[in-house]
Amino acid sequence: MNFADRLHAAVEEKGTPCLLGLDPHPDLLPEEFAVARKPEVSRGRRADAVETFCCRLIDLAADRVAAVKPQSAFFEELGSDGVRAWESVVSHAHQRGLLVIGDVKRSDIASTAKAYARAFLVDDDEGTSCDAVTVSPYLGSDSVEPFVETCASEGKGLYVLVRTSNPGAAEFQRHADLCEVVARAVDRWGSALVGEGGWSSVGAVVGATHPDELASLRGLLPRTPLLLPGYGAQGAGATDVLAAFGDERHPLRGALVNSSRGIAFAYRRPENAELDWDEAASLALDAMIADLRSALERPAVGS
Amino acid sequence: MNFADRLHAAVEEKGTPCLLGLDPHPDLLPEEFAVARKPEVSRGRRADAVETFCCRLIDLAADRVAAVKPQSAFFEELGSDGVRAWESVVSHAHQRGLLVIGDVKRSDIASTAKAYARAFLVDDDEGTSCDAVTVSPYLGSDSVEPFVETCASEGKGLYVLVRTSNPGAAEFQRHADLCEVVARAVDRWGSALVGEGGWSSVGAVVGATHPDELASLRGLLPRTPLLLPGYGAQGAGATDVLAAFGDERHPLRGALVNSSRGIAFAYRRPENAELDWDEAASLALDAMIADLRSALERPAVGS
Repeated sequence: MNFADRLHAAVEEKGTPCLLGLDPHPDLLPEEFAVARKPEVSRGRRADAVETFCCRLIDLAADRVAAVKPQSAFFEELGSDGVRAWESVVSHAHQRGLLVIGDVKRSDIASTAKAYARAFLVDDDEGTSCDAVTVSPYLGSDSVEPFVETCASEGKGLYVLVRTSNPGAAEFQRHADLCEVVARAVDRWGSALVGEGGWSSVGAVVGATHPDELASLRGLLPRTPLLLPGYGAQGAGATDVLAAFGDERHPLRGALVNSSRGIAFAYRRPENAELDWDEAASLALDAMIADLRSALERPAVGS
Repeated sequence: MNFADRLHAAVEEKGTPCLLGLDPHPDLLPEEFAVARKPEVSRGRRADAVETFCCRLIDLAADRVAAVKPQSAFFEELGSDGVRAWESVVSHAHQRGLLVIGDVKRSDIASTAKAYARAFLVDDDEGTSCDAVTVSPYLGSDSVEPFVETCASEGKGLYVLVRTSNPGAAEFQRHADLCEVVARAVDRWGSALVGEGGWSSVGAVVGATHPDELASLRGLLPRTPLLLPGYGAQGAGATDVLAAFGDERHPLRGALVNSSRGIAFAYRRPENAELDWDEAASLALDAMIADLRSALERPAVGS
């Protein structure tokens, strides 16, 4: 089954386009997992702490969200022990019925891109492969097509970086409207992977921090699932993501709205000082889901 | 000591700007390592074969080249076992006195980029960190600066993708001359990391397959060490790389010329059918070194 169809079925089952990011930044982990930031502790034990933290987050969110997005950098910094933890976290998310979008932002020339696609998108017996990954477009079509081919054969998905949420993103992405050129390429790459619901399995990352650009990019990407970082800790609110949606019959289809630090590290906010980290995360997740629901239930502009 | 100074000292000691790429593509490995391409074999055993192959390549080249460039994709496709093999290969190269340029092409928003920089550039007790890594610029200055800061504190280096060697590279990289905009940013990022020899530790990847563009990019990058893929299997010859060099007093400074498949898999060429894979690799390496020496000894155009 096409990734986009699986994604939308899962989103509609859970009733929210909320995507939970798993960014186990060692300096931000709750005290219970402080071993992860102690350089004198072996990488194996630090990786165990990261794994436990992520699995606890998965457990508290599994009934409420359709997918999680682990960030590979925070696992890779613990070397092969960290990658072993990554595999356990991906596998655990699958066991809990969640889709996994690996935030790996890989990219290389074609023969190497194929190896990355094998690394992250080809199923193995242990359930450690992802349902989709993020990829960077700088090297051009021949660097993305091996991922697209693997998605076609494996029923997996991609999210191509188009317009990212970071403060410096415009420097190259808006150079002569490059991100619009990339967006048109994403639409083209995805044309062969359109599922029964009319959506492609080749998605795009578009920061929710630029709502005006989100609307114009949505116009260039009519059948592209979007992954929207920037909600919460990076400053975007629920109304900023509305342009990514708009299917009246299927109001939850079209985009995933990600929050990572805003959920996982909600315990650090002053108003949550009395709560355990997982209580704070759970409340923050409920609040995000309610916030998105409220925004998406408003009549769309012009309807 | 600044990475660029260490690099040039090593290049001059060995007498060649040749860079040996370690791309253990499972389908291309010699029969002796065929276990690496058998999906029924455990990942651990496949990773052991990849590790052994790369270490043998390192041993045969260690007296002749200054640096090796392992490609992370071919290790990551074997999961955490593959990353354990990557760590062993990096450590072995260091034990043999070689610099290691990790070809990882990572990139992310600042807080995540910092984690990648820790993953690959901060030294540990086991010698598994790299001397430099490749990074992708699409996310902008704030995504590269965490790597630059880590290079400054750790004495390490970067090679930023500017103009890659693959056939489709022009699609976005030449969109409104984007690669020249990136090149100017690379020069700026590297301004604080210029060593005693006058070269920065922030380098650039520029494909040797576009010699005219190489010359114009060199003009924008007067103090930037270049990493030139494309020699050999991808079609570029020694004369195609000359524009990257040109310091009359230090004719070997300014660039590394990479060959991966052309060396490691030389045994697959019909004329080498009678040779063992390592004999073929060794002869191919000698031929490349001689080819570059001959080209670099010619008087530069206009001198």
